[in-house]
Amino acid sequence: MNLPAPSMGSRRFLSSLFLLLNLASTSLSQPLIRLYSKPPFSGDRKILRDDGLYCESWRFAVETNDAGSWTQVPSRCEQFVATYVSGDRYTSDSAITANYSSEFAKTVQIAGNGSDAWVFDIDETLLSNLPYYEAHGFGSETFDENSFDDWVDLAKAPALPASLSLYKELQQLGFTIFLLTGRSEYQRNVTEKNLRDAGYSDWERLILRNASDQGKTAIVYKSEKRSELESQGYTIHGCSGDQWSDLLGFAIAKRSFKLPNPMYYIS
Amino acid sequence: MNLPAPSMGSRRFLSSLFLLLNLASTSLSQPLIRLYSKPPFSGDRKILRDDGLYCESWRFAVETNDAGSWTQVPSRCEQFVATYVSGDRYTSDSAITANYSSEFAKTVQIAGNGSDAWVFDIDETLLSNLPYYEAHGFGSETFDENSFDDWVDLAKAPALPASLSLYKELQQLGFTIFLLTGRSEYQRNVTEKNLRDAGYSDWERLILRNASDQGKTAIVYKSEKRSELESQGYTIHGCSGDQWSDLLGFAIAKRSFKLPNPMYYIS
Repeated sequence: MNLPAPSMGSRRFLSSLFLLLNLASTSLSQPLIRLYSKPPFSGDRKILRDDGLYCESWRFAVETNDAGSWTQVPSRCEQFVATYVSGDRYTSDSAITANYSSEFAKTVQIAGNGSDAWVFDIDETLLSNLPYYEAHGFGSETFDENSFDDWVDLAKAPALPASLSLYKELQQLGFTIFLLTGRSEYQRNVTEKNLRDAGYSDWERLILRNASDQGKTAIVYKSEKRSELESQGYTIHGCSGDQWSDLLGFAIAKRSFKLPNPMYYIS
Repeated sequence: MNLPAPSMGSRRFLSSLFLLLNLASTSLSQPLIRLYSKPPFSGDRKILRDDGLYCESWRFAVETNDAGSWTQVPSRCEQFVATYVSGDRYTSDSAITANYSSEFAKTVQIAGNGSDAWVFDIDETLLSNLPYYEAHGFGSETFDENSFDDWVDLAKAPALPASLSLYKELQQLGFTIFLLTGRSEYQRNVTEKNLRDAGYSDWERLILRNASDQGKTAIVYKSEKRSELESQGYTIHGCSGDQWSDLLGFAIAKRSFKLPNPMYYIS
């Protein structure tokens, strides 16, 4: 049953021969034997000793969630992260994420009754805390909640430009915007002020952690809140966040958009 | 209620002042005003015109699943992908993923009754089809099922070394290994031969698409099969795959490990 019929076998044999010849002719610079006898990879261990390569791969693991929970940027990657977030790659990664979000949003059939929702996280999604992290080792220092809360109180975080332009486009398209943040209820006023000053307006609801949400992981808290939106009749088409805990769990959006963030991890 | 009590306010004011002074002192090379008045990003549109940056960001979007469904490597990124998969970064990204998988696996309490499972995808996870893709534009050509099936029939795909060493380590730790592939039942013999020749052995079960699975998306087919394993009493601790459709859906593993693959997308 698993063997092809004879005529199929002959055809396959000829095709395989053709494939071999094809591989040989298109890979003249490399001996054919290499393709079959030697793995196209060098050893694993040596490669992770190179800081540049290691940090690129560490970022891959962080952004795909392969790394799981982590508390600080590895010391050997401090400069790598500083260079990344201060340079064009962070801007470019954020811009392409916004572009894919926008492309998807344009395919959504908007009902016109306000039920078509998009959920945004705030920190490192709508607002950038880069000025704070710039002064605190870009994630290489142990996170200090007090000094971060002081920064939040200043209400001076700039918008991530790609997110601001996406936000406005989604509103034009007719999406109802929900802001779902791990910030606490007592930070509502400064958060609203910061958002408005950075150019955001007309969100439907800003959801912050209240007393009963304290102590929950972000993934549970945010899933519960999305679930409430669904039971209120909203369809969550898109969700944008820099943490996987903004996107996974339950009541997941139809499409989730992971923004880059190699500075910190929230479970 | 949202306003801090007066004494709290005074403390916060002083802390904020301290933060400002701290920012000023640690960022001497950059005027303080920049931190607050100008977004730390340049314009979006210009940046995506640079091929090198664009392709790095395209890969970010592909590996995080932000890109969603795509059919071919963008022509402007052909060389980028060729360089990536032929070079150290692919090896390094695969190695770090295996390292994180191994770190997690070592934390699992093994019951000892064979119920602790790990699910591996095959193509671009256990086996590398790089020799095939090397001869077919590294994902920049339209996928040709016939020529790929001919390649599969050769049973000559090498192991991804990081995955092979992870596979053996998981067996040592006592995990029961399931192989769950989008390949079809008629490819069972060549697949088994290829796996053994590449160094794999002693898997519990090799699950391929049978007649009733044809036409299902990979994410549905693979979720159904994982769900069957769960109902048979297995606990799926880890799942390794190069496609998000290997990892998402339902009956999701406790930890999922996304291997790199910028050459193709399977929904």
